[in-house]
Order: sequence, then structure tokens, then C-alpha cells
Amino acid sequence: MAESVLLPDLATQIIIPICALVGIAFALVQWVIVAKVKVSVDKSHSADGKNGFTEALIEEEDGGSDHSVVQKCAEIQNAISEGATSFLFTMYQYVGIFMVAFAVLIFLFLGSVEGFSTKPQTCTYDSTKLCKPALATAAFSTISFVLGAITSVISGFLGMKIATYANARTTLEARKGVGKAFIVAFRSGAVMGFLLAANGLLVLFITINLFKLYYGDDWENLFEAITGYGLGGSSMALFGRVGGGIYTKAADVGADLVGKVERNIPEDDPRNPAVIADNVGDNVGDIAGMGSDLFGSYAESSCAALVVASISSFGINHDFTAMLYPLLVSSIGILVCLLTTLFATDFFEVKTVKEIEPSLKKQLIISTILMTVGVAFISWIGLPSSFTIFNFGVQKDVKSCPVQDVADSCRTGAATNVIFGLALGYKSVIIPIFAIAISIFVSFSFAAMYGIAVAALGMLSTIATGLAIDAYGPISDNAGGIAEMAGMSHTIRERTDALDAAGNTTAAIGKGFAIGSAALVSLALFGAFVSRAAISTVDVLTPKVFIGLLVGAMLPYWFSAMTMKSVGSAALKMVEEVRRQFNTIPGLMEGTAKPDYATCVKISTDASIKEMIPPGALVMLTPLIVGIFFGVETLSGVLAGSLVSGVQIAISASNTGGAWDNAKKYIEAGASEHARTLGPKGSDAHKAAVIGDTVGDPLKDTSGPSLNILIKLMAVESLVFAPFFAAHGGLLFKIF
Amino acid sequence: MAESVLLPDLATQIIIPICALVGIAFALVQWVIVAKVKVSVDKSHSADGKNGFTEALIEEEDGGSDHSVVQKCAEIQNAISEGATSFLFTMYQYVGIFMVAFAVLIFLFLGSVEGFSTKPQTCTYDSTKLCKPALATAAFSTISFVLGAITSVISGFLGMKIATYANARTTLEARKGVGKAFIVAFRSGAVMGFLLAANGLLVLFITINLFKLYYGDDWENLFEAITGYGLGGSSMALFGRVGGGIYTKAADVGADLVGKVERNIPEDDPRNPAVIADNVGDNVGDIAGMGSDLFGSYAESSCAALVVASISSFGINHDFTAMLYPLLVSSIGILVCLLTTLFATDFFEVKTVKEIEPSLKKQLIISTILMTVGVAFISWIGLPSSFTIFNFGVQKDVKSCPVQDVADSCRTGAATNVIFGLALGYKSVIIPIFAIAISIFVSFSFAAMYGIAVAALGMLSTIATGLAIDAYGPISDNAGGIAEMAGMSHTIRERTDALDAAGNTTAAIGKGFAIGSAALVSLALFGAFVSRAAISTVDVLTPKVFIGLLVGAMLPYWFSAMTMKSVGSAALKMVEEVRRQFNTIPGLMEGTAKPDYATCVKISTDASIKEMIPPGALVMLTPLIVGIFFGVETLSGVLAGSLVSGVQIAISASNTGGAWDNAKKYIEAGASEHARTLGPKGSDAHKAAVIGDTVGDPLKDTSGPSLNILIKLMAVESLVFAPFFAAHGGLLFKIF
Repeated sequence: MAESVLLPDLATQIIIPICALVGIAFALVQWVIVAKVKVSVDKSHSADGKNGFTEALIEEEDGGSDHSVVQKCAEIQNAISEGATSFLFTMYQYVGIFMVAFAVLIFLFLGSVEGFSTKPQTCTYDSTKLCKPALATAAFSTISFVLGAITSVISGFLGMKIATYANARTTLEARKGVGKAFIVAFRSGAVMGFLLAANGLLVLFITINLFKLYYGDDWENLFEAITGYGLGGSSMALFGRVGGGIYTKAADVGADLVGKVERNIPEDDPRNPAVIADNVGDNVGDIAGMGSDLFGSYAESSCAALVVASISSFGINHDFTAMLYPLLVSSIGILVCLLTTLFATDFFEVKTVKEIEPSLKKQLIISTILMTVGVAFISWIGLPSSFTIFNFGVQKDVKSCPVQDVADSCRTGAATNVIFGLALGYKSVIIPIFAIAISIFVSFSFAAMYGIAVAALGMLSTIATGLAIDAYGPISDNAGGIAEMAGMSHTIRERTDALDAAGNTTAAIGKGFAIGSAALVSLALFGAFVSRAAISTVDVLTPKVFIGLLVGAMLPYWFSAMTMKSVGSAALKMVEEVRRQFNTIPGLMEGTAKPDYATCVKISTDASIKEMIPPGALVMLTPLIVGIFFGVETLSGVLAGSLVSGVQIAISASNTGGAWDNAKKYIEAGASEHARTLGPKGSDAHKAAVIGDTVGDPLKDTSGPSLNILIKLMAVESLVFAPFFAAHGGLLFKIF
Repeated sequence: MAESVLLPDLATQIIIPICALVGIAFALVQWVIVAKVKVSVDKSHSADGKNGFTEALIEEEDGGSDHSVVQKCAEIQNAISEGATSFLFTMYQYVGIFMVAFAVLIFLFLGSVEGFSTKPQTCTYDSTKLCKPALATAAFSTISFVLGAITSVISGFLGMKIATYANARTTLEARKGVGKAFIVAFRSGAVMGFLLAANGLLVLFITINLFKLYYGDDWENLFEAITGYGLGGSSMALFGRVGGGIYTKAADVGADLVGKVERNIPEDDPRNPAVIADNVGDNVGDIAGMGSDLFGSYAESSCAALVVASISSFGINHDFTAMLYPLLVSSIGILVCLLTTLFATDFFEVKTVKEIEPSLKKQLIISTILMTVGVAFISWIGLPSSFTIFNFGVQKDVKSCPVQDVADSCRTGAATNVIFGLALGYKSVIIPIFAIAISIFVSFSFAAMYGIAVAALGMLSTIATGLAIDAYGPISDNAGGIAEMAGMSHTIRERTDALDAAGNTTAAIGKGFAIGSAALVSLALFGAFVSRAAISTVDVLTPKVFIGLLVGAMLPYWFSAMTMKSVGSAALKMVEEVRRQFNTIPGLMEGTAKPDYATCVKISTDASIKEMIPPGALVMLTPLIVGIFFGVETLSGVLAGSLVSGVQIAISASNTGGAWDNAKKYIEAGASEHARTLGPKGSDAHKAAVIGDTVGDPLKDTSGPSLNILIKLMAVESLVFAPFFAAHGGLLFKIF
């Protein structure tokens, strides 16, 4: 492995920032194109928008279209954007306090490893050399933690801003045709995808280079300090996902239970008081939450690969290009995604509804093929000996046949629907788990833990395209909501619904990728943790490890119990408020009076801020408590247990929720003879399907996606604190 | 450890069979007392009973009571007993074929370890000595497998016979008062409990002594052969639980969905065509299934303790009494339970409804206290050095406050009820997992794996009392059904309902014990397997083990998906049949025409026989496939993964189901101001509660309890086949 690589160090130093800047430039170009769609408002309407940013987004229109509709769209867009901004600011205030406290903790704990000594110490992996003192690593870890957290916040916030900028524009473009609307929604998704991917890469690259000025050739401690970046990114992601997830589902469940089930009014009907809160939820949960989440995954998998590399031969040989190989993969990823995006926006044009889903799937296929070539090339020139990176298979999504089974079970009521949906979710675990197991085995065989880390990174290298597709869904969903609320014609609504539906399958594949990569990242981080904590084996048959395994496998249940109960409680409050408004505001049902949207927005905001703290604390504190009191062996058990158990619950929760959602849509669409026997809307079977869909909401949009973060975050946190636990941990066993 | 024990070998040889015979005699005495309650029928009615056994059970009454009611009770009892007998016979035929095939497999696989050589071989743990050939162990393992299977079948069948003998008698006694009915139901439960415990002990004792004639001092191979007894017992238990579980829930869900929800007729109403199938289900699922299950647990924990002991110092020193210490514990357990039972039946008399639950709880407390003394005594005289057996804490049962939360969530419909119930079930995992983790750590600290095996055995040593309490519930449930069907007065129904309800909490504690002991037993079996398979460590970080862990954690989901879907499909068929009968039989709703009970019984029977095969095959074949193709390391991963993941799902499934059940009962009972605001029966909140209850049925009565068996059975099967896997396993890794 001592042979040098083909790519000179200088080239690496140039390629990475260039690629990142190209990504940012591309995002800006897309933004400019989206901005060409004008959303005009009367000045008197925008006066109630206290937010200067929002006003700047709204430009005068050239005229020619129905002014009142455009005005209404602008008004609704304003309301959604304000609600989302106010929620995110409130959340960031709370999370900010937590982050500062945690940053202090990191500094104190890691600094205490060598008693806050400022003298150089012998290196962990090479005792003949001197490494930088633990205090320096404590300081730099803290800095990179804060950087990661800030980058994550910016990612989520930017994503939300872009989405609330794009939603009304998509609605308005839908008047011209489904193809136009698709392009706007997809470009907006791309703005978010490229900004996040490029920004994450650039910050990481600059941080490494700055830290390197101090650390020099001490790769080991340099990358240990860099791991803080992953921890910061993913702890923000946790709160973003949990808070946003509770927000969106409280509003959604609350709106549906009263609106659809009790009052029999359509989705997104402006008479429903929770409708604005519901649309805000899409932006803070699905967009901002997902943005933070995917950035966290990306940061963690990069850090995992870097840490594993630093203790490999590259690190010992001071091979700069080989060390930065993970960043080179991400750089190529940006270029690949750029080319791929052009296939959807420029090379081909989507004209009919039928072409949307193939176009999105083509995005996945093209990016995967190009990336495989790209990774092979960069591995050839950037790695000292030949590594083959395993390309992870596409996860199987929910097929239509089992969905028909679930839909059929609605004939006999909600209970059988719930039973079948749960069974389907449990069953859906089988194939992904085998796929993950095979990919772990194969990538490990090629390059041990480094292989696993790079496999995870490979799955996330096309993050820009993945995010574009993921963000496109909620934007279309919001666009549909705006169309409904603005009282636009049914054709518009049908077009936006088609956009949304087409994104569902690809989004399901995206979720599969997120879970699969989370499993691989966590395993790589876990491996790095064990290595840093200086444990030789993690033997299940020692009771210290086994009880950790058992308790670790329990944590995802505890966490899900908290988040589901939170959604349930928040939804109950929302239901009561919506009922109250329907009962006390005269003329609301008739459409002559306006509901009080703001109270519903406030209920969602307050509930989610309050309820996100206990599950967040559970995840953030568990590794600390276990490490300090029970030591590194029990902690490795906890990590392994939460990983193998969390993956299953995450997959089954997502697919159970998805199956109920699809079964409901299947009955509502009434596209086949069979579906029509179950419908129409309002039939007993449809009501049963709505109940299933409602149960599935917190499963697929709150608990499921947050569990990914749980397993990764506990692993990266353990890795960051590993030297501290190794030095001072296991108090309880030391006492007895 | 070489010091000898206080109890002479001869005393051990006498004490164990005497205790077993005392247990059997006590069971017979209880039977005689129960039989004093006469169930008289007219000869013309019993003519349609083709079963001689049933006729023998029904004796002429002395007269004095309402003849037509007694006759009706006898008729219904007949129908239930026939349905149950016919189902069990059909099931045993299918399972019998499987068992024969599996017995052949055991013989061939274990025989092939040394190429069917008849020559003695050097012992695994002491290479200076010669041990019996592998062929002999293969033959004896096969024999003990068959013995275990037969004992399990007899246990389940006897339990069912006793229960269907006792149900109508309980109904008739309920006319005289709740105390009388309680005594009959409890005595009948005791008949089953003592017969099973004593029978299991006796068969095991005789088998060991017979095998010892051949093996002499070769404890190692003797107890390896004996492990087959555990495998036989628990594989029959698997099919009993799964088949019976599907049967009972298909009938129950089917009967409820049409009867309660659509037709608004009470539970057990004779107009409901599925009502007999529902009552048959209680006997085959809850009674026969549970009998097989607990016998399996008992057999496995005995075998686990024996195998661990055989490779400890006792085995090396040929210390007979110390070796049979696990059987001594069970013997003391029988005496303790006998004394405990007298507290419920003779020392105190239950007179009012309020006294029932305390009386049952007293049973648990008294037996635990007496058993602690008993175990301490037997450990003192029966073990060479002092062992302290950890007494496992009582699992927390569902408290009333969370149930009120769940009941409250019914206000906003079935969806929030389901969400809250799932969250409650997830949350209920926390405390038991910590309890199990602590008990594992403590018992391991005292005596390593032997400590864990003995802790499990300690939990099961009062099995006779546990079974009596568990069996008492379904008997009372059936008694209520008979009262309803026979058209007896509401007072009778209220009394039997009170009996049933009082048993619920104690039964929940029993379930907690079953799961906790299953976790401990599996861990001990797993430890024994690792030791027999000659693996030194099970390192999670080796990919072979990790992929096993991941896939193992997935298996409980796969298994639950199968069983839940089976219940769902069978229930759908049942619903359609019940609806058909209501729609096509004129006068059925008015009570002037009789429904066709037999078709419903047949639907449940056919569905459960057909549907029990795939989940059964999954559990039985997984260890074989993994061991043969992937080898012992991956298999250890699978065992650890399924253990830590299965325990969680088992606990959460049981408690989720229990919470929904209790929330429904809470609303129905209307015992508090709060409960009355949610009710009455038929209100929207009540309907939502019924949906939750229906969803919970397969969770708590099919998937949950079967998962216990899954984790134990895979462990014991791996242990039996360990020498074969060690010799010939891991084909796939050998090829590549």
C-alpha cells in the first residue's frame, strides 16, 4: 500500500473546491430560472408580511393572467413561509442552547482525557511518535462540532426558504401545463440539493485545510477532531427531524381527522383551520428536516471514512490525496449530479403526466451509472492500491399487489386494514436487510471497515440528485394545497397531484437509500469507535456486552414511543382546536367566514418544540451515560443493538405508513375495476383506509426517519467521546 | 468445587420421582373434586356426540335445577369439546409428519458428525478420555426429541380436555355464587398445571436414568442427547401456539367484526355463527397452545441447565446430585405449588368478586416466597459450593393511568387509539428490558451461564401455579360464553366475567414471566451452543457475526408478518361466512333460526392448519440453513440478534394488545365518571376502542407469545445440531 497515487496533491487541492463552487453556481443558475416565474401581489396584501425576505421574493407580474388568483397564491405563500420561518427560528433558539451546552461538554470531557495538559503525547497507533495534546483535539473537536451544527442549520433553513419560494410558482406554472410545473418543482429541488451538497463539501474541505495548518502530519488527531463535524451535523438533524416531524404530523393528522373524517371536506380545503399549519409542516418537516438529515448523513459518512483512513496505511504514509479520497468521491458526485439534472431539465422535456415518473426514475439510473464510472475513475487515480467500491442495490419499494391486499382489507373495516398494514411493514424488512447484509459482507471483504464507510459514502455521493427528487415531492404537495386554497380549477389540482404521486415511488427508494446508508455509516463509525476506544473484540457472550446489546435494541422502541405519543398528543390538541373553530365560528363550513389559521400554527409550533426535547435528550445522553457509568464494552453492545434493531423498525415503520397511504390513494383514484368496488370517497372501505393512513403518518414521517438519525448519532457521538470513555469511563464497574 | 454435596445420590433418586408422583396424585384429587359438579344431558342430545370420552364425562344429575339450562350447557360443552378435539387431531396429524421427518434429520445429521462410526471417540472437553460415539448420541437425541414432542402433545391435549370438562361446570356453579365458580375454575386450572409439571419432570427423570444405563459417566454426551427433549417439546409448542393462535384469533376477530361492530349483538351471542368457533379457539389457543408452550420452556430451561452443568466441574466429578440439581429445583417447585394451591382452595374461601384478584395475586406471592426458601434449601443440600439464585422481579403490568390515556384517545377515533396503543406498547418495553438486563448481569456474576440457566429455571419452577392461574382465565371465559349461549340470567354472566377479569392482571404478570424466562433460557442455550460449537468469542465486529446479528434481528419481524397476515386472512374468511349466514338464513337475527356453527369451526380449523406451516418452517429451518451454509459464527450472530430483537417485539406486542383490550373494557365497564363520558357501548369512542382491541388480538395472542418460542427454539435447535455444524457447516464460506 506504500506506492503513491496518480493524482498529485495539488490537483486534489484544486479539484475539490472547484467542484464545490461549480455546484453552488449551478444551484444559483437554477434559482434564477425558477425566479423568472412571477408571483405578483398587491402591496396592501404583503403589508402583513413582517418578513423583509418574503417581500423581496415577490415581484411585479407583467400582467395577462387572473390577478386575484395570483394574489391569493402570493398571500398563501406568504402565510406558509412566515409560519415555517417562525417555527424554525423558535426551534433554533432552543436547540442553540442545547448545542452550546453540548459544545462545552465536548471540550471539557475531551480536554480531561490527559488532564488538560498542553504537552504533546505519544500517538495511540504509533508509540514511537509524538502527537498533538488531547486539549488541542478537544478544542478543534468543539469547533468542528459547532461548524457542523451551523452548516446543518443553514442547510435546513435554505431548503425551507427555497421550497416556500417555489410552491406558489409551481401552482402558477401548473396553469400552463404539467410539464412546466414539473420543471419548476424539480429545479427548486435541485437548488436545494446542490447548495447542500456543495456547501457541506466546501465547509469540510476548508476546515480540514485550516486544521491541517496546526496538525501537520498528525492525521489521527486531525480526523478525530473533524469527527465533531459529523456529530454537530447530525445532532441538529435529530432535532430538525423530530421537531419538524411532530409539527407536520400533528397538523396533518389533526386536519384530516376533523376535516376528512368528520366534516367530509377535501384535503387542503381553505375552510379547515389547520390547513396552513399542515402546509407549513411539509416545509419544516419534509424539507428542512430532510435537508438537515441528509446533510448529517453525508457529514457522518465522510467523517467515518476519513477516520478509518487516518488509522490506515494512507495516514501513516501521509498520503494527502488518498486521505482526501472520500471528499474526491463527493466532488465527482456533484459533477455527476449536475450532468444528471440536465437530463430532466434540458435534454428531455416532460409533457404528459405519464412521463413524470419515468423521468424521475431515469434520474436515479443515470446518476447511478455515471457515478459508478466516476467512482471507478477517482479510485484509480486517487487511491494507492486498487479498491473496488461496492455499488449498493436499489431498495425494493412497495409493489402494487400488496397495496391491493391492504386496500382489500378495508372492506372489513379499519382493524383488518391496520393488521394487514402492520404485517406488510414487518414483511418489507426482509429484502432490505438481506441487501444490507450482503453489501456489508462484500464491502468488508474488499477493504474492511474502510470498505463499509466508502460504500455508505458511495450511496450518498449522488445526494444532490437524491435531495432534488425528495424536495420535489413536498413542493408539489404544497403547490396542490395552494391551488386548492386559492380556489383554482380542478385541472390545476390534478396536475399537482400527479406531480406529487410520481415522486412517491422515487421518494420511497430515496428513503431506502437513507436507511441503508445509515446502517453502513453507523457500522463504520462503530468500527472506528471500537478501534479508538482500544477494545480488541466485542464479544456478545460477555455479560457487559450482552446487556448493552439488549438495552441498545430497546432504545429505538423507547424513542418511537416518545415520538409517536408526541404526535398523538399534539394531534389531539389540534383536533380539539379545529372542532372548536368549526363549532364556534359561524359561517365557517359555508365558506363565508375565515378560520383562525394562526392558532393552529401556534399549536403545532408549541407542541413540537416541547415534545422534541425528551426524545432528543434520550439519543444525545444515552452514549454519555452508558460510556461514563458502564464503559466502552457495554457502549459497543448498545451501539450494535440499536443498529440492528433500529434499522428494522425504521424500514417497517416507513413501509407500513407508505402502504396505508398508497391503499388510501388507490381507493381514491379508482383507476381500476377493483379499486372502484372499494370506493368512492366516503364509503366504509375508504373511511377504514383513512384511519390506516392516519395511523401511518407518525410511523412513516416522524418515527421512521428519526430512527436513522438515532443509530448514526449515537455512533458518531461515541466516536467523538471515545478517548474520554477509554480514559475515565465505566465508573460503575470500577466502583463495584 | 470438588467437595461433595450433602444430599446422597440415593435420596435424589427417590425425591424426584416421589415429588412428580405427588403432583400427579394431587392433580387427580382436584379432578375428582371438579367432577362432583354434575352436567346432565338427555340421551337424545348426547347422541350427536361421536366422542366416547365426552359422553363419559357427562353424568346424571341428582335433579333439582332447571333441566333445560343444564341440558343446553351440556350440549354447548359437547360442541366445544368436539370442535377442539377435532382441530387438535387434525393438527397433530400434520405436525406428526413434520416431526418424523425432523427426527430422521436429527439422526442423519448428528450421525454423520463422525461418519456413522460406532467406535468410541475422544471426549470434546477432556481429550484423555474416551466418550460414546456420535452415532449413539444421534440415536438418543432422536429418541429424546420424540419423547419431548409426545410429552408436549399430551400436555396440550390433556389441558384442552380438562378445560372443556370444566367450562360448563364453572357456568353451573356460578348459579350458586361467584366463590363456587371460582373454586371450580381454579381447581381445573390446577389439574392442568400439576399434571404438566409433574409429567414433564417424571418423563425427563426416567429418560435420564435410562440413558445413563448406556452412557455411564459420560455426562457430556448424555446431556447433549437429553437436549433433544427440549427441542421436541418446544417445536411442538411452536406449532401449537401458532396454529392455536391463528385459530382463536381468526374466530374471535371474525365474530367481533360482524357481531359487535356490524350487527350490534353482544359477545358470545348464540345468533353469531362464529360463536362456537370462538369458544373452541380459547381452548386450543390459550389452553392447549399455552400448555405446550410452558412445557417447552420448562423442558428447555432444564436442558440448558443440565448441559451447562455437564461441562462444568459437576460433570467432571460425576456428582450425580449436583448434576440433577435442576430437577431437584423442579421437584421442590411441585411441593411448593401444592401448598400454595391449598391457600386458594382450602385455607381461605373466596366469597365476593373483590376477593378474587387478591386471592390470585396471593398465589403468586406465596409461591414466590415459599420457592425462594425451597431453592435456598435445595441449593444448600444439593450443590457442592454455595450458589445464590437470583429471584427475578415481577414484571410491571399495565397500569390503569396509561390505559385511561389510551381510552381517552378513542374520543378522536380509531386512528389516535391505534397510535397511542402502539406507543404504549413500545414504551412498555423499557422496564422489563432493564429488569432482564440486570438479572442477566447479576446471575452471570454469580455462576456464569449456569447462573443464567438456573435463574430461568427458578422463574419456571412454580410452573404448576402459573399454569393454574393462566388456565383459569380461558375456562372462565368459556364459562361465560356457555352462560350467554344457554340463555342463562345476566347475574351468571356477570359472575363469570368477574372471574375472567380478575385473571387478566395475573395473566399479564405470567406473560411477563414467560418472556423474561425465555430470554434467560435462550441466552443460556446460546452460551451452551457456543461452547459446544467450539467458538471462542462471538465478535460483533467480524462481518460473519454482524450479518448474522442483523438478519437475526429481522427474523421476529418476518415471523410476525406471517402470523399476523395469517390471522388477517383467516378472519376475512370468517367475516364473509358470518355475513353470509346473517344475510341468507332467515330468522337468524330474530333468534328463531339456528346458525351453522360447524362451517365457521371448519374455516378456523382449515385456515390455521394451512397457515401455521410457513412460520413454523421459518423457525425450524433457519438454524439449519444458516448453520449448514454460513457456519457457526453467523449462526451465533443470528441467535443473538433474534434474541435481543424478539424480546422487544414480544413484550410490546403483548402490552399493546393488552392496553387496547383494557381500554375497551374500561369504557364498557363505565365504572368511573371519566369512563362514562366515553361510553356507553356503541358510542363512537367505544367503536374506536373495539377497532383497537381487534388490532391487538393477533398481536397479543398470536405473534407475541409465539415469539418467545421462536427465540428459544432456534437456540435449542442450534445446540442440538452444534456438533454437526462444527464438523460440516459453513459450506458457502468453504467454497468461496
